[in-house]
Amino acid sequence: MAQLVVMYKTPTDAAAFDKHYFEKHVPLAKKIRGLRKYDVSKGGVGTPFGPSAYHLVAILEFDDLAAIQAAFASAEGQAAAADVQTFATGGVELFMFDTREV
Amino acid sequence: MAQLVVMYKTPTDAAAFDKHYFEKHVPLAKKIRGLRKYDVSKGGVGTPFGPSAYHLVAILEFDDLAAIQAAFASAEGQAAAADVQTFATGGVELFMFDTREV
Repeated sequence: MAQLVVMYKTPTDAAAFDKHYFEKHVPLAKKIRGLRKYDVSKGGVGTPFGPSAYHLVAILEFDDLAAIQAAFASAEGQAAAADVQTFATGGVELFMFDTREV
Repeated sequence: MAQLVVMYKTPTDAAAFDKHYFEKHVPLAKKIRGLRKYDVSKGGVGTPFGPSAYHLVAILEFDDLAAIQAAFASAEGQAAAADVQTFATGGVELFMFDTREV
């Protein structure tokens, strides 16, 4: 499998972020072909030493890295990426990689 | 469920890191009670714009955030955490959160 990890830093207005994320962004992202599983953090993103600088982390699972690259190139992926720019007021970091279970 | 995301920045010696990680750290971490699934990145950690500053990402799944906190407090968790200090020469970031599927 492969994972796309999307890490949203704390936004200007957390309530507005959450409303947009769950009402608009999730439905857009779920249209992306090849998406197998879509988990989001619930109740804050911590570290072993206390709160983190991140408000929400999303982990999207695909079959492999090629499927993630195809997703970004698709119209649905481009729509979801464009939408991110409208609500990720604290900034966002994306990481993608193939995975294996150990 | 809940996830512990461990992000290792590029180490001084990637081959030495990998050898230690897979031969010593993974067996130590797998002793941690409550660990349900343990995935690691394979073949590099990218971004949509090219390579990232990270060498390896591990995603460890537990039942809930309380199980992750209990894992850190356990002897096995403390042994794994102490081991990290011996090979994570590029630094490491840890994030933990409950998740829900959307």
